Amino acid sequence: MGKTCVDVKELPDSYVFVADMPGLKCGDIKVQVENDNVLTIGGERKREEATDQTKYLRMERPSGKFLRKFTLPSNAKTDDISAACNDGVLTVTVPKIPPPEPHKPKTIEVKVG
Amino acid sequence: MGKTCVDVKELPDSYVFVADMPGLKCGDIKVQVENDNVLTIGGERKREEATDQTKYLRMERPSGKFLRKFTLPSNAKTDDISAACNDGVLTVTVPKIPPPEPHKPKTIEVKVG
Repeated sequence: MGKTCVDVKELPDSYVFVADMPGLKCGDIKVQVENDNVLTIGGERKREEATDQTKYLRMERPSGKFLRKFTLPSNAKTDDISAACNDGVLTVTVPKIPPPEPHKPKTIEVKVG
Repeated sequence: MGKTCVDVKELPDSYVFVADMPGLKCGDIKVQVENDNVLTIGGERKREEATDQTKYLRMERPSGKFLRKFTLPSNAKTDDISAACNDGVLTVTVPKIPPPEPHKPKTIEVKVG
């Protein structure tokens, strides 16, 4: 299949992967995390076969298997990834591990000696 | 916008145009017939803008206006075209004008002269 186009956005609390998947149902798409830091988006797009009744005059839409891989940043929370499909667009949301709270400087009260 | 991929199929009683439109709603797509024999499929795909909160790390998905034109065969019934959008795929069905019934040969009874 031709390239599956993917946008990647960084939000304050997550990374969002947006992939064009026209004609695919949710069940046709496989989203996985490999080695704890590689997001894979794969699947297969099938084209209706030509038959005695159906003749293709033009065939531009890509078909076949596809697989995209993305190395996730170290602050990706890989055990809390969600994915949704709508109007032929897959959206995968990878939350960020919140940064540790900065240690507040301790204020020591200065007493009159 | 990058190429909008379109398949064209011929069925016994219709021509079917199948176009990838991931992320587009029906209202974003315009299907017209020009000069009684040119099918046009157009629209615009908008990308969410980057903001202070949203930064694009990767931007592969095409956006912007698109327009495709197809000259219809002479037997296309242009006043009866239908279009439907599902899972980011637009399907436009153009019925064929049925061919005229072949004239049956007339059989003349041969009488004994």
